[in-house]
Amino acid sequence: MHKRIGNQTVRLENPPSVLCEYSIAGKKEKEGNLGNLFDETVEDSLFGTKSWEKAESKFLKTAISGLLKKASVTEDDVGYIFAGDLLNQCSSSHFAIRGFKVPFFGLYGACSTMAESLSLAAMSIDGGFAETAVAATSSHFCSAEKQFRFPLEYGGQRPPTAQWTVTGSGAILLGKYSAPPYITHITTGKIVDNGICDANNMGAAMAPAAADTIAAHFEDTGFSPEDYDLIITGDLGKVGKELLLDLLPGMGVDIKKQYNDCGLIIYNLDKQDVHSGGSGCGCSAVTLCSKILRDMRRGELNNVLFIATGALMNTSTCLQGESIPCIAHAVRISTKAGDLQ
Amino acid sequence: MHKRIGNQTVRLENPPSVLCEYSIAGKKEKEGNLGNLFDETVEDSLFGTKSWEKAESKFLKTAISGLLKKASVTEDDVGYIFAGDLLNQCSSSHFAIRGFKVPFFGLYGACSTMAESLSLAAMSIDGGFAETAVAATSSHFCSAEKQFRFPLEYGGQRPPTAQWTVTGSGAILLGKYSAPPYITHITTGKIVDNGICDANNMGAAMAPAAADTIAAHFEDTGFSPEDYDLIITGDLGKVGKELLLDLLPGMGVDIKKQYNDCGLIIYNLDKQDVHSGGSGCGCSAVTLCSKILRDMRRGELNNVLFIATGALMNTSTCLQGESIPCIAHAVRISTKAGDLQ
Repeated sequence: MHKRIGNQTVRLENPPSVLCEYSIAGKKEKEGNLGNLFDETVEDSLFGTKSWEKAESKFLKTAISGLLKKASVTEDDVGYIFAGDLLNQCSSSHFAIRGFKVPFFGLYGACSTMAESLSLAAMSIDGGFAETAVAATSSHFCSAEKQFRFPLEYGGQRPPTAQWTVTGSGAILLGKYSAPPYITHITTGKIVDNGICDANNMGAAMAPAAADTIAAHFEDTGFSPEDYDLIITGDLGKVGKELLLDLLPGMGVDIKKQYNDCGLIIYNLDKQDVHSGGSGCGCSAVTLCSKILRDMRRGELNNVLFIATGALMNTSTCLQGESIPCIAHAVRISTKAGDLQ
Repeated sequence: MHKRIGNQTVRLENPPSVLCEYSIAGKKEKEGNLGNLFDETVEDSLFGTKSWEKAESKFLKTAISGLLKKASVTEDDVGYIFAGDLLNQCSSSHFAIRGFKVPFFGLYGACSTMAESLSLAAMSIDGGFAETAVAATSSHFCSAEKQFRFPLEYGGQRPPTAQWTVTGSGAILLGKYSAPPYITHITTGKIVDNGICDANNMGAAMAPAAADTIAAHFEDTGFSPEDYDLIITGDLGKVGKELLLDLLPGMGVDIKKQYNDCGLIIYNLDKQDVHSGGSGCGCSAVTLCSKILRDMRRGELNNVLFIATGALMNTSTCLQGESIPCIAHAVRISTKAGDLQ
C-alpha cells in the first residue's frame, strides 16, 4: 500500500508514459486560441451525419482512430479503453467504441471524464493489468444544449454565467514507463455539493469541488504550488476561476501564479460569444491533447496538475429542485518520472 | 504483465476478498424467490421520498450505509467507491454518494454495472491503490419505465419479451486478500452490436455480448465450464437465456449444466407478472449480494462466474433508428484464492 499517500492520492510506482494524444475539434474551436494546434478540425457541426448525437459520436470515433494511427498501433495492441461523455447513457462513447474490438470500461464523470479516464487508464497500467490503455471523451455544443437546456431552434437567451460546450474529442494512449511525459500521481475527487441549483452557472457549482481536490492533492503529496509550472482546471470558466481563487487561500493554498482554466484558454473570450468560457468533457480533453501536452513535449512545461471538474446533475434532478453535486479529479503529469517526495 | 492472460482477462495476483455485501430491494422483489434473503426490503416504492428518482437514490445510499455498518467500517476506511446506475447522468449514484466522503469513480455500464464496478474495485486493490473499495449499483422499476419507456400512468402494454426492472440496490465491500470468497479473475467485455433494435427485447440484444465474454473467459483462462458450480448472467431473462444457450455451442462452449440467469432466479415467473424475467442494474446486484454470496459463504458454491450484461442505448438512439450496442463483464469469484492454472 505504499502507492496510496494520504486520503485521496496514489503515487504510481512505475509512472505510465503518455505515448500519444489526439485532438479533433469543431469550427468555433478552430477559430479560437488553439485552432492551429488540433490534429484535426471539422467545419460541419453535423460531421456528415444526420444528428448532433451521431456527430458527437463520430468525433470520438475519429479521435480514437486518429490516435491509434498517429501512434502506429492497432486496436489489438490496446489493453483497455476508458471513456465516457455527457449524453444520456453515454451514448456518444458506446456508438463510437462499438467499432473497436477492445475491452471497454464505460465511465460517467461529466466534464471530469478526461481526468477520470486518465486516472483509471494509468492505474490499469501501473497495476499490471495492461501494457497500454486509451483514455478518451467527447462533447458537442449542439447535443449538449439540446439535452441539457433548450433545442437550438428555440433561441434561448444565455446568461453571462453560462459556458459554451466545446465540440470536440480528445484521446490519449498511455503505455508502460518508457519516455516522458509521465502520469506520476492521481488525486481522486469526492463528491462535493455546496447547494448551487443554477444549471446555467456550472462554474460556481464546480469550484468548491475543484478546491477540495486541489487542497487534498497538496496535503496528500506534500507538493506546493511552486512545484508546478501549470495548475489547470477543466472548465470552471471566468466565474468559477474567480471563485476557486477566492476559496483556496482559506484552505491554505495559493495557486494564483500557476493557475489557469481550459475554458478560458480554448476560446478568445473577447471576440467569441462564449460568455463565461468553454465547458464540456471535450474542453479539457482537447486542451490537454493539444497545447498542454505539446508544451510538455517541447520542454516548455515540466510539471502540470490537470484537474477536470464535473457537474453531476441531470435535467430531472434540476426540475425536482435538487442542487448540483460536483466532482474534480486531478492528475499530475511530469516530464520526470521521479518526484520530490 | 503476468496478470494479463489472453486478450480480455486478468488474473489477480493477490485476489481481493469479498469482505461484506448488502442488499436492499422493493416489495415485488420481497414477494419473489429471494425475498427472505435480502438484508432489507422496503414496501413503499417511493421509499418516503417525492419522486422515483429520489427513491432509487435512497435505495443506493441505504445499501452503502447498510454495508458499512454490517462490515463495521466507517467511510474513512474506504479507499474508493465505484458505482453507477441507469438514470440519465447516473444521478441515482451521485445523489446517493454525495453523502459519503470517499474518493469516487462514476461508471456507466447499464445493467453490467455490478460486474464493472466489482472489476475496477478488485483491480484498485490488487494494483495496490486501496486497502478497501466499495462496488455498488441500483435500479428502480418506476424510474426506469419513466425514463426508458412510458410514464407508468400511461399503462402501456408490455410485450412478452419485456423484462421487469428490479427495484433495489446491492453493495459490496472488497478488501485485501484475507478470507474467502475471493475475486480471482476479471474478463472485461468488448462492445458487441448484432443489430437488434427492439428496446423491449433486451435479452436478445445482450445475449451475443454475454456469449462473447463467456467464450473469451474460457479461451483466456483455460478453464472449462466444469470448473464452475455456477455460471450466471445478469439479466438476460427467458429470451436471452435461450439465445445464449443457442449461441455458445457454435463457439465451442457448453455451459448448460452450470448456467442460470439472475433475471430468472429473482422473481417467481409463474406467479409474478414479469414476462421474460427481471432486469436492471439492481437485478444482478441484489442476487449476487444475497443468494450467490450466501451460498458461497456456506460452502454450497465454490466457483462462480458472474457475468453482468448491459444494453448501452438511450431513448434518442432508439428513435434515431440505431441498433443496441451491448457489453458483458465477467468476474470469477472463488472460495479458493489459487486457481487451476
